[in-house]
Amino acid sequence: MLEELKEKVFRANLKLVEYGLVVLTWGNVSEIDRESGLFVIKPSGVPYDKMTADDMVVMDLNGNKVEGKLNPSSDTPTHLELYRKFSEIGGIVHTHSSWACSWAQAGRDVPAYGTTHADFANGAVPCARGLTKDEVESAYELNTGKVIVEEFGKRGISPQEVPAVLVFRHGPFAWGKDSFKAVENALILEEVCKMASRTEQIASMDKNSNIGIEQYLLDKHYQRKHGKNAYYGQK
Amino acid sequence: MLEELKEKVFRANLKLVEYGLVVLTWGNVSEIDRESGLFVIKPSGVPYDKMTADDMVVMDLNGNKVEGKLNPSSDTPTHLELYRKFSEIGGIVHTHSSWACSWAQAGRDVPAYGTTHADFANGAVPCARGLTKDEVESAYELNTGKVIVEEFGKRGISPQEVPAVLVFRHGPFAWGKDSFKAVENALILEEVCKMASRTEQIASMDKNSNIGIEQYLLDKHYQRKHGKNAYYGQK
Amino acid sequence: MLEELKEKVFRANLKLVEYGLVVLTWGNVSEIDRESGLFVIKPSGVPYDKMTADDMVVMDLNGNKVEGKLNPSSDTPTHLELYRKFSEIGGIVHTHSSWACSWAQAGRDVPAYGTTHADFANGAVPCARGLTKDEVESAYELNTGKVIVEEFGKRGISPQEVPAVLVFRHGPFAWGKDSFKAVENALILEEVCKMASRTEQIASMDKNSNIGIEQYLLDKHYQRKHGKNAYYGQK
Amino acid sequence: MLEELKEKVFRANLKLVEYGLVVLTWGNVSEIDRESGLFVIKPSGVPYDKMTADDMVVMDLNGNKVEGKLNPSSDTPTHLELYRKFSEIGGIVHTHSSWACSWAQAGRDVPAYGTTHADFANGAVPCARGLTKDEVESAYELNTGKVIVEEFGKRGISPQEVPAVLVFRHGPFAWGKDSFKAVENALILEEVCKMASRTEQIASMDKNSNIGIEQYLLDKHYQRKHGKNAYYGQK
Repeated sequence: MLEELKEKVFRANLKLVEYGLVVLTWGNVSEIDRESGLFVIKPSGVPYDKMTADDMVVMDLNGNKVEGKLNPSSDTPTHLELYRKFSEIGGIVHTHSSWACSWAQAGRDVPAYGTTHADFANGAVPCARGLTKDEVESAYELNTGKVIVEEFGKRGISPQEVPAVLVFRHGPFAWGKDSFKAVENALILEEVCKMASRTEQIASMDKNSNIGIEQYLLDKHYQRKHGKNAYYGQK
Repeated sequence: MLEELKEKVFRANLKLVEYGLVVLTWGNVSEIDRESGLFVIKPSGVPYDKMTADDMVVMDLNGNKVEGKLNPSSDTPTHLELYRKFSEIGGIVHTHSSWACSWAQAGRDVPAYGTTHADFANGAVPCARGLTKDEVESAYELNTGKVIVEEFGKRGISPQEVPAVLVFRHGPFAWGKDSFKAVENALILEEVCKMASRTEQIASMDKNSNIGIEQYLLDKHYQRKHGKNAYYGQK
Repeated sequence: MLEELKEKVFRANLKLVEYGLVVLTWGNVSEIDRESGLFVIKPSGVPYDKMTADDMVVMDLNGNKVEGKLNPSSDTPTHLELYRKFSEIGGIVHTHSSWACSWAQAGRDVPAYGTTHADFANGAVPCARGLTKDEVESAYELNTGKVIVEEFGKRGISPQEVPAVLVFRHGPFAWGKDSFKAVENALILEEVCKMASRTEQIASMDKNSNIGIEQYLLDKHYQRKHGKNAYYGQK
Repeated sequence: MLEELKEKVFRANLKLVEYGLVVLTWGNVSEIDRESGLFVIKPSGVPYDKMTADDMVVMDLNGNKVEGKLNPSSDTPTHLELYRKFSEIGGIVHTHSSWACSWAQAGRDVPAYGTTHADFANGAVPCARGLTKDEVESAYELNTGKVIVEEFGKRGISPQEVPAVLVFRHGPFAWGKDSFKAVENALILEEVCKMASRTEQIASMDKNSNIGIEQYLLDKHYQRKHGKNAYYGQK
């Protein structure tokens, strides 16, 4: 079932390797078929160079495995919760890419420091609050998803305007309209996190330097790419 | 029309990928044919591995598309303004390369710290002033070009002696006698920005360290490569 | 003798190159056959692209060369001591990978800053105490092994729960159930060291930032991957 | 003439690209034939992917071109001076590799922070004093060589025990018994400079950290690889 989607999710997972976002078996990509309510996800702990499209696992939104001989990614309940609550998204990615994880480990939001960021997200990328001991010890992966949703709710951010989050002490989740767009957003997030750290480093060497993109410039870049009168790219 | 130039600009764009200066669809290269007053530029938002020479767009200096089925790069008005005012340049590049963007986001000029810089530019690479709210909200990309030209005028720098600029909060533009030379300058700028940040970091760890190239050493390196008695390279 | 093991250790050594953990002739991998008490190790100072499976050297646990035309790695006595005292391990790796060496040169333990670390090790990766002048001047490589064993004993850490160590002013040793797992751990250590330094850098730019993974989150990640009820990966 | 040597120097130059030590036409390698007193060097400003063995230039120790249709590297007088005064060396490399240049731009010696350094050099890698205005304005490249020789003399270091130097505000020169060994030393210097900066960064985050290799450990590593009882590598 969902053979085309399995092939697509398989190829989206391989993009993580191509983009240098993962080593070993780290990371996972999924995509949902909103019509059937089923999503396809990478199996847990399988090396990318051994993996086939056939190894992809089909899940329903109650967390039941519908098809597949392997265990799904251990992060499956996080994906599931995000698909349930962020009804507009179609694909999700989790990686341990180095710069995004470093911001997550520092527990900091990634500030919007320039237009590369503004082309991608309408403001800072939030680092969600840490999970409590109870949340970690019971249904950890599901609670990870709940805390992400809570953070976006609390801050009044929609998952469309900011297509990624940092999980505290852990690393990034990114999403998009499908799995390929989600992978693209995971790559951009990594670039943005790298630049943000370098920006702070460079600015710290000059007392006259100040950082943080002006709101009107952020608006301009975000809107020219994602607004209703967007004029970036082709029709 | 301009089939050879389209092929050349196409290949110059691919150099950005080869040199690691861009990911996804980021960046753009153009080159002008001064005789006809037409320039060829990358289309907007097209992935490098799908692009063909035929996708290149031909523009005139009034901003009219003369040939091409795709939209030109959204940065086209910036290129246009630079070609109009910097009459000696033949090719222009814009990228979001990480180190140059980080300096741009920090809003700092890139100081001349050593001979790698002096081989490339006759002094600091300026970070242009930020655009005002009005400048951003009307004709943003054109105003970006105007602010670059203004900055060089204000500082009395010619585009030949400093073949690149940082756009505040945004990233680098580089240029040269043609598109390939412009790409080369974009690469050198990235190397110079990387070294400049590392130089400051290394110097900050030793109280006895001081940085900034001596004027006579800068002159020597700049002149031996670009001066009228230049002796670097072949005749 | 041990032809299969020589082939395996040869291929594990080449993984160091593939993973970017070594340049030139640096680094070495070994694996022990616990039944015969013999281990196979890379020869000293041989370039990876010239090396063959046949060049691998077979050693016994008394430090005698049992087979091989070349000298074994100069670090052989360290491997030997670790095999003798850490009876559960099957493979050992030593590299001069840049980030792990930098922590070793700074003489610091690598703190557990996030889940990437917790998936790998049950707490900080120790930097062993420096060797004394006497220990360096007599049986240096053997004493390096002894100091590693001493450090784990003193801290009450088992080599299973923390599969790597930093040798003071020198660099990392990593291990695992076989040579491939040891190489994998050397790669993860490098990633973890890189993230740890970046985490400190990013956190240092924000007064409100605090770092260090919560014990219950470390436990969760370590146990879901390595505990008796581990559920990461496939059965 | 010297066809074999031209082929060798050509291949040694290509190693700079393979090792990531150069971009564009940067860098140059030479090797001397001590018997004839002639040395072979890369031509100036020729791209590596267009260069052939036949393009190599043959020079004598008085600075006369003996064979070759192209101009020799503009750094030729520096090579020449080093061959004249450092009679034991056979090959020389100059690059603009990023980390070594950053130390040179900061004007700092590279301290011996660990065993990777000690395996390579018997103490700090000196940053030579800056050239005076007069020295820069007359015979700049020759004076660069003279200042290197002066620095080693003043400090009582032999070019065998420390096979590299940083030229103030400029970048590294490295050498060895032949051109390949010189390139190897240029690569190691870059690794050592990278680690040294990271070591300072990591140590700066922990008040209890101290850095600088102990003299007896430096001696041990240097001697086991380069001393008269060296036991690293094969006979």
